[in-house]
Amino acid sequence: MHRTVNRLAGAGKGIAFVPTMGFLHEGHLALMREAGSHANVVITSIFVNPTQFGPSEDFTAYPRDLDRDAALAESAGVDILFTPSADAMYGKDHETFVDLDALPNHLCGISRPGHFRGVVTVVSKLFNIVKPQVAVFGKKDYQQFVIIRRLVQDLNYDVRILGVPIVRDIDGVAMSSRNSYLSSEERESARSLFRGLQEAQQLVWNDTRDASILADHVSRLIHSHPHTKIDYVVLCHPETLEAIPRVEEETLMALAVHVGPTQLIDNTVLTSNRPSMELNAGLH
Amino acid sequence: MHRTVNRLAGAGKGIAFVPTMGFLHEGHLALMREAGSHANVVITSIFVNPTQFGPSEDFTAYPRDLDRDAALAESAGVDILFTPSADAMYGKDHETFVDLDALPNHLCGISRPGHFRGVVTVVSKLFNIVKPQVAVFGKKDYQQFVIIRRLVQDLNYDVRILGVPIVRDIDGVAMSSRNSYLSSEERESARSLFRGLQEAQQLVWNDTRDASILADHVSRLIHSHPHTKIDYVVLCHPETLEAIPRVEEETLMALAVHVGPTQLIDNTVLTSNRPSMELNAGLH
Repeated sequence: MHRTVNRLAGAGKGIAFVPTMGFLHEGHLALMREAGSHANVVITSIFVNPTQFGPSEDFTAYPRDLDRDAALAESAGVDILFTPSADAMYGKDHETFVDLDALPNHLCGISRPGHFRGVVTVVSKLFNIVKPQVAVFGKKDYQQFVIIRRLVQDLNYDVRILGVPIVRDIDGVAMSSRNSYLSSEERESARSLFRGLQEAQQLVWNDTRDASILADHVSRLIHSHPHTKIDYVVLCHPETLEAIPRVEEETLMALAVHVGPTQLIDNTVLTSNRPSMELNAGLH
Repeated sequence: MHRTVNRLAGAGKGIAFVPTMGFLHEGHLALMREAGSHANVVITSIFVNPTQFGPSEDFTAYPRDLDRDAALAESAGVDILFTPSADAMYGKDHETFVDLDALPNHLCGISRPGHFRGVVTVVSKLFNIVKPQVAVFGKKDYQQFVIIRRLVQDLNYDVRILGVPIVRDIDGVAMSSRNSYLSSEERESARSLFRGLQEAQQLVWNDTRDASILADHVSRLIHSHPHTKIDYVVLCHPETLEAIPRVEEETLMALAVHVGPTQLIDNTVLTSNRPSMELNAGLH
């Protein structure tokens, strides 16, 4: 890969990069299309990264389908697919890790110790391998997006990080490779996450600003659906991820919910004021 | 710096990099000259990195003389001097660190917790800023050299790491910015470090292979000089830094000694067999 990317750089080609764990869906393809609008060459990695899975998590069960992924990536404009083995990425003497002190101590990082250390380490490695000018991440993994931006700033990577909005299926469920684990009944319950976020936004616009009231409302809504177990419903600052008691300005609402055995996450950035129609029209 | 190095890369120039903490001496200049033989452009950084100093260490007292350094660097062929401020390198929200699990738990890492985390973090940052093809380090800081090689391998940096042998003053003392702290009496005692290493090599060639006998001999020799306090005398594997009980193959002998209030380090790679004169001649 170093030879390939150095050759591209020597030919004056810009590289945009989309790291993934494969089992691609429309959400990933949106990242790839976005990448294509920022550089001559789009490189996507497919690597189910062992260091970001905890011992009791679904590393071996994580869905994989490389042939299908390759066709989908090509259809979305990807030029180079990088699919290293775990042994190639982590030699037997591997002992170097990248980690953040504060941002992982929120949301999913609390129940997944070491998860973001694994994410940040593999993204650092991939940046050093692919040497992109632009890298594109989905905002469904919002905490990951914020952490990668911090990584790039703190370690001075010359990489522009772009975040792409969540892509939802027609029933409102956020696209995720892990949706393949859901039964049809669980899928029905999974719709409550987005419905909860939508209702929270309506409540804020109708002047319910108290974070605990909003979180409680969403928790009850989700909990009224079968097979759901709420891991967290949190309102927090969209940059620092620190908890926020009242929605006075843009506030991240982030959810993690077990639906059956599968953990799903979803989020939205709540705006404190209903967007004005005139203003929106003016922006087009 | 990103703009500068991207412009150089666009013009097809290779970059060799020498990171330093300044107060340059012949040892640093040897690194710069070596760098110049591997690339079109030599970049040197001078940055006294706060994150690699412990709270009781000499960060504020560390000697600095930028004007003198700039002239010396230029004389050694340096094209670009990078001298960032601590505030520019570590913003107030900085929270990302790079660390190794095993190699820091030896030699100087034991008494300097967090030291190599600071070193590895700043070197990662500097690599991302300068984007060199080659980086040159001195083997006086042998543990640092081994750790940086591991960093590059583990995080897939596309940087070739070169190590340059220790440069010694005419009295045998290894060049170090911290030598400026020594009184003339302490300087006399400082000579015992290299003398100890030389005697250990002679003993090995005369078939004294037991690591504890060799370490003991060197410790006694150094200790017989005034103002000395031995921090460690260790024989270990030159790659893993694991302790070695007998010198059967190439073995690192590493010393750390307080001479007065100043900690000095020195080392040599002991060879098990006296080099043959014929063989040496044949190699020329």
